[in-house]
Amino acid sequence: MLSPDILATLRAVSTGTITTILLKKGVRRTWLRGPKPFAPGYPRVVGPAFTLRFVPAREDLATPESWASPRSTRGAIEEMPEGVVAIADAMGVTEAGIFGDILCARMVKRGVAGLVTDGVVRDAAGVLATGLPVWSAGTAAPPSVAGLTFVGWQEPIACGGIAIFPDDVIVADGDGAVVIPKALVEEVAKLGPVQERFEAWVVGEVEKGAKLPGLYPPDEATRARYQAEQKQG
Amino acid sequence: MLSPDILATLRAVSTGTITTILLKKGVRRTWLRGPKPFAPGYPRVVGPAFTLRFVPAREDLATPESWASPRSTRGAIEEMPEGVVAIADAMGVTEAGIFGDILCARMVKRGVAGLVTDGVVRDAAGVLATGLPVWSAGTAAPPSVAGLTFVGWQEPIACGGIAIFPDDVIVADGDGAVVIPKALVEEVAKLGPVQERFEAWVVGEVEKGAKLPGLYPPDEATRARYQAEQKQG
Amino acid sequence: MLSPDILATLRAVSTGTITTILLKKGVRRTWLRGPKPFAPGYPRVVGPAFTLRFVPAREDLATPESWASPRSTRGAIEEMPEGVVAIADAMGVTEAGIFGDILCARMVKRGVAGLVTDGVVRDAAGVLATGLPVWSAGTAAPPSVAGLTFVGWQEPIACGGIAIFPDDVIVADGDGAVVIPKALVEEVAKLGPVQERFEAWVVGEVEKGAKLPGLYPPDEATRARYQAEQKQG
Amino acid sequence: MLSPDILATLRAVSTGTITTILLKKGVRRTWLRGPKPFAPGYPRVVGPAFTLRFVPAREDLATPESWASPRSTRGAIEEMPEGVVAIADAMGVTEAGIFGDILCARMVKRGVAGLVTDGVVRDAAGVLATGLPVWSAGTAAPPSVAGLTFVGWQEPIACGGIAIFPDDVIVADGDGAVVIPKALVEEVAKLGPVQERFEAWVVGEVEKGAKLPGLYPPDEATRARYQAEQKQG
Amino acid sequence: MLSPDILATLRAVSTGTITTILLKKGVRRTWLRGPKPFAPGYPRVVGPAFTLRFVPAREDLATPESWASPRSTRGAIEEMPEGVVAIADAMGVTEAGIFGDILCARMVKRGVAGLVTDGVVRDAAGVLATGLPVWSAGTAAPPSVAGLTFVGWQEPIACGGIAIFPDDVIVADGDGAVVIPKALVEEVAKLGPVQERFEAWVVGEVEKGAKLPGLYPPDEATRARYQAEQKQG
Amino acid sequence: MLSPDILATLRAVSTGTITTILLKKGVRRTWLRGPKPFAPGYPRVVGPAFTLRFVPAREDLATPESWASPRSTRGAIEEMPEGVVAIADAMGVTEAGIFGDILCARMVKRGVAGLVTDGVVRDAAGVLATGLPVWSAGTAAPPSVAGLTFVGWQEPIACGGIAIFPDDVIVADGDGAVVIPKALVEEVAKLGPVQERFEAWVVGEVEKGAKLPGLYPPDEATRARYQAEQKQG
Repeated sequence: MLSPDILATLRAVSTGTITTILLKKGVRRTWLRGPKPFAPGYPRVVGPAFTLRFVPAREDLATPESWASPRSTRGAIEEMPEGVVAIADAMGVTEAGIFGDILCARMVKRGVAGLVTDGVVRDAAGVLATGLPVWSAGTAAPPSVAGLTFVGWQEPIACGGIAIFPDDVIVADGDGAVVIPKALVEEVAKLGPVQERFEAWVVGEVEKGAKLPGLYPPDEATRARYQAEQKQG
Repeated sequence: MLSPDILATLRAVSTGTITTILLKKGVRRTWLRGPKPFAPGYPRVVGPAFTLRFVPAREDLATPESWASPRSTRGAIEEMPEGVVAIADAMGVTEAGIFGDILCARMVKRGVAGLVTDGVVRDAAGVLATGLPVWSAGTAAPPSVAGLTFVGWQEPIACGGIAIFPDDVIVADGDGAVVIPKALVEEVAKLGPVQERFEAWVVGEVEKGAKLPGLYPPDEATRARYQAEQKQG
Repeated sequence: MLSPDILATLRAVSTGTITTILLKKGVRRTWLRGPKPFAPGYPRVVGPAFTLRFVPAREDLATPESWASPRSTRGAIEEMPEGVVAIADAMGVTEAGIFGDILCARMVKRGVAGLVTDGVVRDAAGVLATGLPVWSAGTAAPPSVAGLTFVGWQEPIACGGIAIFPDDVIVADGDGAVVIPKALVEEVAKLGPVQERFEAWVVGEVEKGAKLPGLYPPDEATRARYQAEQKQG
Repeated sequence: MLSPDILATLRAVSTGTITTILLKKGVRRTWLRGPKPFAPGYPRVVGPAFTLRFVPAREDLATPESWASPRSTRGAIEEMPEGVVAIADAMGVTEAGIFGDILCARMVKRGVAGLVTDGVVRDAAGVLATGLPVWSAGTAAPPSVAGLTFVGWQEPIACGGIAIFPDDVIVADGDGAVVIPKALVEEVAKLGPVQERFEAWVVGEVEKGAKLPGLYPPDEATRARYQAEQKQG
Repeated sequence: MLSPDILATLRAVSTGTITTILLKKGVRRTWLRGPKPFAPGYPRVVGPAFTLRFVPAREDLATPESWASPRSTRGAIEEMPEGVVAIADAMGVTEAGIFGDILCARMVKRGVAGLVTDGVVRDAAGVLATGLPVWSAGTAAPPSVAGLTFVGWQEPIACGGIAIFPDDVIVADGDGAVVIPKALVEEVAKLGPVQERFEAWVVGEVEKGAKLPGLYPPDEATRARYQAEQKQG
Repeated sequence: MLSPDILATLRAVSTGTITTILLKKGVRRTWLRGPKPFAPGYPRVVGPAFTLRFVPAREDLATPESWASPRSTRGAIEEMPEGVVAIADAMGVTEAGIFGDILCARMVKRGVAGLVTDGVVRDAAGVLATGLPVWSAGTAAPPSVAGLTFVGWQEPIACGGIAIFPDDVIVADGDGAVVIPKALVEEVAKLGPVQERFEAWVVGEVEKGAKLPGLYPPDEATRARYQAEQKQG
């Protein structure tokens, strides 16, 4: 389980910094192509992945009647624990909205932290009104069954070209959404704040007129200077 | 012809609801991939389709001189009746703007309700200044002849992967643009408001804490409860 | 070299008008697919191209260590003269940000007029804070080495499907970015303002209710009327 | 279970005829985009779907070591019953081969009827040498872990944009591969041969010089003539 | 009308040579993306374009019943004069075959010279058996109505990203298909054989060991030498 | 320099095996998307990369006249040493052929081992007749200047989404083309034959009926058995 401390720490680490740390550990495929913030100004969202899986629509399966099946998006939402990030593999389909205002409103009630998908939502105004933070590839009018068949939850999925497993951690902010593999979450929470602090210092140096070579990435002299200044506080 | 009543009714039905109704009637391909609102805050636009057709540019045909031909976009605009939605098949070409400020300004003068295209417009600031509601795939600087040859109007077209015939009805709002096949317009105008009312009630129920299964889609009990409440007013 | 006069003149000519003039001279491929204004409200940016070139990432080359190499983006930035438009061939890769806040801040310090790329930037909020006018294909969290290897500057490049050579002129505004081949800059600076003036007059005529055929493009009568009015001032 | 009779019947019905019959029943999405015969001259292959599912590669998961895991393609192959068509959701990835000669050779040993994927195979010469009938999107040198992570078998999948469930029936021939939803298999086996016989007769009529209108689709007169000739035998 | 002489001349000019000649006249967009020879060994096919136009399928329009309509592909085929090249705008749709064996067989009976499309055909074996030379983007099992609605013939069309007008001339060979605008046919027929002869001579020179610079394109000396040799015969 | 021994060794190692070895060393991006054998039956081709670089066509630059420039493909070919693999970055453009029969014939004369490109060649029959082994994305009729501007040779390039540097080694066979980074060539030449031998043994085991788990990848027992058998010879 994710401790509240780790969650709080990660909320202060940007997706940019997380991708840099993971790349240094050899994991390059962590940023999801497709999901963008649906509205400006969301706080950074962090939580364990609760996965949802769709396959393409087939006219004999993807019917309005299917919405009443126990293996439906409705059923999945009622299983979501508080604090998760719902993450839906819509296979990048952008012409059928996986959720609209009603389902998003219910997710807010259940305490879901956010919704991330490589597909789209529908009823843009209604979804915004629910206040649920959403990262998607935009919006479309048609219902999910116009393009997709829902098949299950908490399975391994693809989302935006990236593999996601239940209990990996999802972080989403203005630069999009990334996955932190479960086994690397602690490491990222340890290194992230260190890196954030150093980069803030570099920005200050550039504003004072410093040149880039030797500064970023830092050479020995820069590193020494930074550490000295840090000690002084 | 579309009666003013039907137009007024459809202006209160979202594109999302329209796609759901048409899907239930077996027509899944109604939402246009590509056209997005060019600016926020447009009212929902409804009107009969006035189609425009382009083929690709060929250097011997798509010349600035061609703009003076009687078979030109200029000629087409002068044929547009008041209240139509101009809908242009630009074959999804996004590197040549089909219309700029001058042509959009003239469309406003002629009472055109809106412009929908799977291509793009040019002179973004100028187009916005005309006030014409536009759904497009964005903006580009080059003139139409940089990528397209105009070939005619009021013919069957493709737009955003969807077939459109003259006199089909186009509805466009924040979720994009949909076509209602001519033969189904009355049916949609009848069922649309019923569906909108029911979904508004469902949102209210969710806000009171109702669970989704059984509520949406409604089971027998929910349906009975809804009808009872409706009667009470 | 670009004279200050030519720069000032071009700042009053839209990218739309430039593409029309170049098309009339037989040059159709001048508008870059991909780069869009990163924020609304930038002034039009004009300057000589300072080109940057990337090839795809290869795990043995595109490493964080490579940032310290003399052939790095850092080295390139320190070579940029005041007033240039930095233009980066990122091969349309949208999943690795070529620059973030630190590099953009340094470019502002060096007096770079703007950044244009068919790729993306990272750390959206940080980049905006630097004030550097940016045209890109959006934003992504990962660092450049996640998808790209930097190989050099001031070479011929492709950007957004268009060939750019050092010392061509780049103009960018709300409709995107265009290249003016070096040999045609003077001609464009001469014809641009004439065309802008005429189109403004046409918009006025349309607002007074004029029909399009004969007006735009102008027939003999329109041309005569326009010239007469111009003389009167 | 599929009876040997139904299998034999379907082996004489083309994928073209199957798609026409399913379309008449309202199921349009049945033909898989991507899979093509890997070699000319395969017999038509028919069998129940045995599904395989991949998600994208992630460097911490998709490793050569993962091939030894019980949840591996090796494990899946050992579970395949005789006569199935193995059908793999490779998400259309064409730069990592899901299987090479060794795995295909083992599938032949187990009596697998064929392999269908929207991805690719590797070691083209080796795969051909095994004699396994393969429908794929071509070939690539890299191993599956270069682009894919295997996650399981006998789950619902997407393949070539089409939803496939375990026990649906797959038919593949020179025109590609189609799925027959389980519930429609009997119906297709009944109607298929009737349609094949009629179309063969039509080809004969065209060769004798008959015009198309009224012949195909047949009007009343044609239908009567056809039935009369059939009775005569 | 195309004279038999011009047809015979063009049958000896490759599509490669035609595109070079048209490019020198300022027309670059003449080669169709998508159509490839359906089988090896076709003779070069030349003829006036007989255009066919499709828009996307809509479930209420693209039905098996529509095949009996007078505005159908069947009706169009019966209008085709002998010697034309049927050229079909299928909007690049590759998942529904526009024609199968029956329609191709009828086109052969009518003396159609060939079929060119940016879409696909169905029933690969049957189409091959008819002997009709076909250039397409491959093959698919489903009937046209699975993805397309036929709307008319002898209209301007797009095919493979190129504009085609009725009576333009189509030439197709192993390098694909090109359009010669009607007004340029005579010129191409005049220059084509000259160019073919020169290039054959250049190949011979290269085989004798000549270097490329100065040879191809020829400098003055090469040109003089070539002309001298030609005179000698 | 590549020793003749290493070249001979690599000619016996498949591209599939090379990608597996490089992946185990952390280099996943080595197989070029796009290039396929232009004809069946080529021997495996191995040689140092001789890079060629194109940017998009611009009408003022990409002219038939440009072919006579010293910075032309002609000039580049005359610089190619014997035994190199010419590898051309055509940016994946498939509508303009980079080379035809004349240039390919000259490359054969110069002893070039093969041509690899993510673009296409033109004059398919002529290119085949030269006997030059070619890996390309197919064929197109138009000349290079219809879509491309040649800018130089022996620079770092992208080809098929992969970074290539001069003196990297290219290997191409029936599964496509791969790059071996210069620094890893010796290692690959050492490990390749070992891996090929082991896989041949595994195929034999499968043919004898062995199950896959434990065999491939080999567990301890399998490894021991293999080594024992190897010793016996």
